[in-house]
Amino acid sequence: MIKCLLLSTALFCALAGNAQISDSLAFKTISDQVLTRGKCYEDLKVLCKTVGNRISGSPQAAKAVEWGEKTMRETGCDKVWLQPVMVPVWKRGEEHLALKFSATGDYEDVPMTSLGNSEGTGGRLLKGDIVMIKSFEEFERMDKASVEGKIVFFNYRFRQDFPNSFPGYGDAVKYRWQSPIIAGKKNPAAIIIRSISTGDDDYPHTGSTRYEENGPKFPIVAIGNKTADKLEMACLNGGTMAAMKTNCKMDGTALSYNVIGEITGSTKPNDYIIVGGHLDSWDIGEGAHDDGAGCVQSMEVLRTMKKLSIRPKRTIRAVLFMNEENGLKGGTAYADSALARKEKHILALESDAGGFSPRGIETTMSKKQREKFKKYAPLFLPYGVYNFDEEGGGADVSPLKKQGVVIGELLPDSQRYFDVHHTDNDVFETVNHRELKLGAAAMTMFIYLVDKNDLLD
Amino acid sequence: MIKCLLLSTALFCALAGNAQISDSLAFKTISDQVLTRGKCYEDLKVLCKTVGNRISGSPQAAKAVEWGEKTMRETGCDKVWLQPVMVPVWKRGEEHLALKFSATGDYEDVPMTSLGNSEGTGGRLLKGDIVMIKSFEEFERMDKASVEGKIVFFNYRFRQDFPNSFPGYGDAVKYRWQSPIIAGKKNPAAIIIRSISTGDDDYPHTGSTRYEENGPKFPIVAIGNKTADKLEMACLNGGTMAAMKTNCKMDGTALSYNVIGEITGSTKPNDYIIVGGHLDSWDIGEGAHDDGAGCVQSMEVLRTMKKLSIRPKRTIRAVLFMNEENGLKGGTAYADSALARKEKHILALESDAGGFSPRGIETTMSKKQREKFKKYAPLFLPYGVYNFDEEGGGADVSPLKKQGVVIGELLPDSQRYFDVHHTDNDVFETVNHRELKLGAAAMTMFIYLVDKNDLLD
Repeated sequence: MIKCLLLSTALFCALAGNAQISDSLAFKTISDQVLTRGKCYEDLKVLCKTVGNRISGSPQAAKAVEWGEKTMRETGCDKVWLQPVMVPVWKRGEEHLALKFSATGDYEDVPMTSLGNSEGTGGRLLKGDIVMIKSFEEFERMDKASVEGKIVFFNYRFRQDFPNSFPGYGDAVKYRWQSPIIAGKKNPAAIIIRSISTGDDDYPHTGSTRYEENGPKFPIVAIGNKTADKLEMACLNGGTMAAMKTNCKMDGTALSYNVIGEITGSTKPNDYIIVGGHLDSWDIGEGAHDDGAGCVQSMEVLRTMKKLSIRPKRTIRAVLFMNEENGLKGGTAYADSALARKEKHILALESDAGGFSPRGIETTMSKKQREKFKKYAPLFLPYGVYNFDEEGGGADVSPLKKQGVVIGELLPDSQRYFDVHHTDNDVFETVNHRELKLGAAAMTMFIYLVDKNDLLD
Repeated sequence: MIKCLLLSTALFCALAGNAQISDSLAFKTISDQVLTRGKCYEDLKVLCKTVGNRISGSPQAAKAVEWGEKTMRETGCDKVWLQPVMVPVWKRGEEHLALKFSATGDYEDVPMTSLGNSEGTGGRLLKGDIVMIKSFEEFERMDKASVEGKIVFFNYRFRQDFPNSFPGYGDAVKYRWQSPIIAGKKNPAAIIIRSISTGDDDYPHTGSTRYEENGPKFPIVAIGNKTADKLEMACLNGGTMAAMKTNCKMDGTALSYNVIGEITGSTKPNDYIIVGGHLDSWDIGEGAHDDGAGCVQSMEVLRTMKKLSIRPKRTIRAVLFMNEENGLKGGTAYADSALARKEKHILALESDAGGFSPRGIETTMSKKQREKFKKYAPLFLPYGVYNFDEEGGGADVSPLKKQGVVIGELLPDSQRYFDVHHTDNDVFETVNHRELKLGAAAMTMFIYLVDKNDLLD
């Protein structure tokens, strides 16, 4: 171990001078703490197995807030409180989809999920012919008569050619997010989409959608890749039909909370650095990667600092945001409060891309800030974290960006995320303890470094 | 897509001049081919699900050779053949272990696995008191009388503090590989080891061990981490006993084969670059990560070159080595044959660290070669591959190193490997299609680059 530290030390001395020796040693101490004594993996197990999924406004979300408050206190941080947030309530209810794959065949039940924030059939059976459409461009070219009253199947495949899967998600997700608005103009009876999924399986993926304001509201559901493959083949021959019965609906608003914990800064207590994930999840699976992982990692940052007696100059907050999935009300409430209280935020980091091995941290640093930071970037290399070139930040912290705060997001390995994202398969068992912990360690190191060396001042 | 390519192009122009533009475009073409039309994931499924595990000399290993030959031909490469190898045969047979966790308790059956190449109890019931020992150093300090005739429990934990898990493996694996030699001097009745495992579970991990030549041969078995935790607690109170009945034994040798395919070089056909994995596996699980992944990735290299009509200057061979796990006879036979035939090998690359997201390639390049290569290293960054600084190479290609050949090994993300390594849980379902394919793409790019730009001449 000593040999290891000395080697690292030698490396970083050569790279950037003596000032970084103590940072290098601190990084190793942080890594040791998280990898060998960190509790985030156990925390995640409790969240997934005793609370389970937790959509905004649900009884489970209330239970998650309780869990979050309790777990935040257990980190040993200086102060814990709940920040009230009004959240939209979407309820799924029972749902079924059956497909007829040929003119003469029978209906077959298939795995499906209604999209979040969508309206259902109100429990009535909705039947109709299926029209397969591969893209919005193709849809725009079709006349209204060939779509009206039909069930439109948007059969757009997640592009697998991007080496990082997030650009593929960005490319495909418009078919989940914009379909009702674009298709609405031609008055379909309902929409079925191919799930926004890299998976070689039949899990349907949910996620938010939206309607034109005051426009028509019709059901929109997703099917898994295998079912979509089968339906695609069938549509080439014609005679395909769908029968769906769903009950989902918006159901007003409810009072919920962001959970916040902080370590009060030693010399600049009125400067804030925050780290967070979102506490709500979709109402299927366990919200393990999305975003239980980000919540437990954020709390691990506080726990690690406390355990190692690291006294940050600035106040460090962990925030478990409510309602990222279908409203972003938690992120908005936090930013509104920061503005109202004139809290000077230096950095807002999020983890909301899964609990996988960290590879980098994207930020909205200025060019000058980034240049300053990058002198320290080699310190992260022994931990497999090398990419600080990307521009971006998490959804929950994006409202702070509008206030001029530098925001960021942990960049874990992206290959597996969209296999499980928003599905019944996003469960604790798909999270690896070492990957999750390394992400928490990288977040702690990043915040430690920015605070200690005043990198964003 | 065009925009994407142009951006990459601009980046690499800026980095290293026009000569790299075509390499950058070739990399994107290789990546597209493997990610969207590659067959390695489907190949792995067939190997895992129709052949299954395949220890050297077993009927399944013979079936794997047939599968390898057939699949190699399907890559479209120019030539396929089998290279005979005599391999040691180790047979497991039925095996049981029961532990008594207290003086007054009953025996409880626990999950266990005999270590590879070890001798069993010959079907007899072996019972004895357990002596827990935490390290070889502690063992050396003990007098012979306190060990003789006892069942020694080497309770050494896999260190989780290394950010990369391979140094942790290197640190712990001596308790699997050297225990019989070190403990043999004090004549124990048998050895139980804590599995060489990062897993938060109870899977026992097998793997090779060995005895002192002409020394005593006694049973050595591994238990999973959960059982080891329980036994550790129990040993603190005393009265622990073990009862084992095992049948494993060495059973002579058998004829088997390396499977070799090649694309004949266009201008330097007598210069060879090889890429390989090992076809044998342990006799539990499916040998998916270890090392079905390396086999299908190596064949994907040939397939990709053929599909893209890349005509390498040098002859590129994919080699599926037999008997890496418990003898290295395949790697040795290949190197012996290369020497006998005076085949000039330029590079021997292996993939045998799991089918996870690639992060780098370690090699034994000279300093000068590495400097030359590293000018091209930024080309790999868009594919998440950044680490070319490590010194090392795969086990099967290590005999070639003795002949002065540069050897190497793909460095995938290491976090999950030692959860599944040598267990019943090393199955197809634990391999992600995109991670596996990105590894194959990185290997193809590396070989393409070395060949085209004469980087190792």
